Amino acid sequence: MTRLVVVGGDAAGMSGASQARRRRGPDALEIVAFERGHFTSYSACGIPYWIGGVVEDRDELIARAPETFRDDYAIDVHLRHEVVGIDPVGRTLRVRDLEAGGERDEPYDELLVATGAVPYRPDLPGIDGAGIHGVQTLDDGQRVLDDLASGCSQAVVVGAGYIGLEMAEAMVQRGIHVHLVDRGTYPMKLALDADMGAMVAREVEALGVQLHLGTSVLGFDLDADGRVESVATEDGDLHATVVILGIGNAPNVALARDAGLEVGAAGGMVTDRRMHTPTDGVWAAGDCAEVFHRVSRRSMAIALGTIANKQGRVAGINLGGGYATFPGVVGTSVTKVCGTEVARTGLGAEEACDVGFEVVTETVRSTTRAGYYPGAKELTMKVVAEKRTGRLLGAQIVGEEGAAKRIDVFATALWNEMTVDDLLNVDLSYAPPFSPVWDPVLIAARKSWQAVEDDLRVNP
Amino acid sequence: MTRLVVVGGDAAGMSGASQARRRRGPDALEIVAFERGHFTSYSACGIPYWIGGVVEDRDELIARAPETFRDDYAIDVHLRHEVVGIDPVGRTLRVRDLEAGGERDEPYDELLVATGAVPYRPDLPGIDGAGIHGVQTLDDGQRVLDDLASGCSQAVVVGAGYIGLEMAEAMVQRGIHVHLVDRGTYPMKLALDADMGAMVAREVEALGVQLHLGTSVLGFDLDADGRVESVATEDGDLHATVVILGIGNAPNVALARDAGLEVGAAGGMVTDRRMHTPTDGVWAAGDCAEVFHRVSRRSMAIALGTIANKQGRVAGINLGGGYATFPGVVGTSVTKVCGTEVARTGLGAEEACDVGFEVVTETVRSTTRAGYYPGAKELTMKVVAEKRTGRLLGAQIVGEEGAAKRIDVFATALWNEMTVDDLLNVDLSYAPPFSPVWDPVLIAARKSWQAVEDDLRVNP
Repeated sequence: MTRLVVVGGDAAGMSGASQARRRRGPDALEIVAFERGHFTSYSACGIPYWIGGVVEDRDELIARAPETFRDDYAIDVHLRHEVVGIDPVGRTLRVRDLEAGGERDEPYDELLVATGAVPYRPDLPGIDGAGIHGVQTLDDGQRVLDDLASGCSQAVVVGAGYIGLEMAEAMVQRGIHVHLVDRGTYPMKLALDADMGAMVAREVEALGVQLHLGTSVLGFDLDADGRVESVATEDGDLHATVVILGIGNAPNVALARDAGLEVGAAGGMVTDRRMHTPTDGVWAAGDCAEVFHRVSRRSMAIALGTIANKQGRVAGINLGGGYATFPGVVGTSVTKVCGTEVARTGLGAEEACDVGFEVVTETVRSTTRAGYYPGAKELTMKVVAEKRTGRLLGAQIVGEEGAAKRIDVFATALWNEMTVDDLLNVDLSYAPPFSPVWDPVLIAARKSWQAVEDDLRVNP
Repeated sequence: MTRLVVVGGDAAGMSGASQARRRRGPDALEIVAFERGHFTSYSACGIPYWIGGVVEDRDELIARAPETFRDDYAIDVHLRHEVVGIDPVGRTLRVRDLEAGGERDEPYDELLVATGAVPYRPDLPGIDGAGIHGVQTLDDGQRVLDDLASGCSQAVVVGAGYIGLEMAEAMVQRGIHVHLVDRGTYPMKLALDADMGAMVAREVEALGVQLHLGTSVLGFDLDADGRVESVATEDGDLHATVVILGIGNAPNVALARDAGLEVGAAGGMVTDRRMHTPTDGVWAAGDCAEVFHRVSRRSMAIALGTIANKQGRVAGINLGGGYATFPGVVGTSVTKVCGTEVARTGLGAEEACDVGFEVVTETVRSTTRAGYYPGAKELTMKVVAEKRTGRLLGAQIVGEEGAAKRIDVFATALWNEMTVDDLLNVDLSYAPPFSPVWDPVLIAARKSWQAVEDDLRVNP
């Protein structure tokens, strides 16, 4: 009987394990999963909402408990077990029992590495002080909540990306004064162009968050107990008893690297389309694996639950004897800062130029419903298109309720390498409660095509 | 100087006129438009919301007044002028002045026919009674409102399609008891399969509308003044002082037919991709023209503002000396009945079989946001896919707020002839306030692909 071992019990690992089980019965395949934390298959993306009190109970974030995997899928899940070594030649793992103590060897025939990502912790003075948190796991979330419960009137969030913004809002909702510090000149600079980012900055400030842009963190001052009491920044010292690190994360590949498994230029494990690594019997999926970006044609590291689930599914189908491939991503993401929705897909203007495209951009303002229909909300859309061909390269949306999900049309258009000229005619749904007669997506495509034509006239 | 004459001053006609003007200055092109009604460029789709009181002022529905066209676009708009004849050989029109009376001839070099659609009026006893209304123009809407204002406690709506449902809700909102009569066994039968239509029926009844399905209207009883007082149906007589005809509409081609212009099998004017008819110098756009359905590969007549605007744009670009084509539709539409959103695109299961596909269908229930996120609403999605290939053929959605606009992803996928296998991996946006980790669209695609594979195993 084949023995499949899964390292990491969250989205990618458990999706893979379940899919493999769906295709192969317990007599043909033994499945064992090791997870160093206390939980399986939870929504890491939901942690800021739990901390903010929007989601009341931690358990709501758990999609499937270990018992479900054991009883319904015959998957033997071991929580609080950390895999500390892989021997890909002998096909064994070294596993540490974090509760009982001690280590043991576990054999495998097929191995699925799904170790996720780790938050960046910059090498600054005081970084290991108590009260300084990454937000990656439910355990992290619980530690933040414990700290907040023991009294916190002012917090510092380092990094104005998705997690930084979501955590800033979460703490504002708990009545905490929040300083948000970022080296960049505008928030979400990995996701948005500067003009769109400036709109987000205004919303964040309206929320009451004190923004320190273009500001580096220099270090952390700790009290006698080793607890953070202030954050030293280029903008002065900021008092804080809780610090959130939201400066991004990297694929968690320490284990893979130690085992000699291939790690790519983007920092993640390298796989083929079926999620198999170059090492026999070793597969990888989720945040620890690189993904192919279909527009830039580069490999990237993106930590996102929806990608992890898809990759886990693909790995699991293949591990179960089926055939499936993961076709890559177009770089879609979305978030919400208070009432403001922010979404993007594809490449920003600069990113597009970086990979060799020449571009035209067009920004339009429109509404989520017919202008005369009650509840019509404003939105701004920016489209990046290739010069001359008009190929859609990317889109960004900042707006109120009903704005952001429209990014999915751009994502689907990018997936199919559509031109804005083709996109502008797509038969999107229209009725006054849902859209102006020209949906904003179509307006943006139409004006982008106009810009491509105008550019062609000037630069034939 | 070329003289462009436009017949019909609504979406298609005025879009065409404006586009032509954008490309050619007033010295190169004279543009004249004749409109038999009192208004230009208004949102016919907004009429039910005006009647229901959701939109307060009729003028909110008017996108551009005649003065705007005159002053900003140098388009000479003549309201209350009806074109009663076309001589395509002599390139002249016969125009009747509905206010001053009298007729005159008007020459043209290029003619854009944008005469819209006319509501079906079944040939039943009493059909011409006062109080029996189609809802197509602002003038129609005003007449309905006038009738309601003079006292109406009970109304009958004939036809449970988009307009019928929207008008039923509008009148319920005004405190009127509404009977909705339809020959079909479920509402929206041109848009939905029976299982999805049954969900809509439940919502309509929950709204307080009395549904008479599988019921034909036999005639209308009029009082001594020629005013409707009851509707005779197979389900008995229904008292009503206002009757709304919502049984669909047909391209308004009487003028075209009289002039010997080509009318197709679907009842609309025939055009090429540039919206030019087979007759020299004559173009057509909007509800009066047929459209090519990209999935069924058949020509159809669809009355929808968003299509009219797109076709008008294409005609206008070509009339202005540019080059643009209208690539067809995939049959997308959307509406809302109280809190229930309904959308569809592509082909229903039966429609697909009618044009020769063999299909698998799959229906999934999911939520608009992560299940644990506040405000997550239920939705049901049905996907129709081709057997064996898994090509997406259509999708239907019934659900609460945030459900329906997801149809646009299916529409874009259909446009690109995607398979559900390809669609299930598309990089749609995910964050807990916006979607479960697998967006419902992806779940529906994934399960459909599973159904295709299962079917292939049984019927290889």
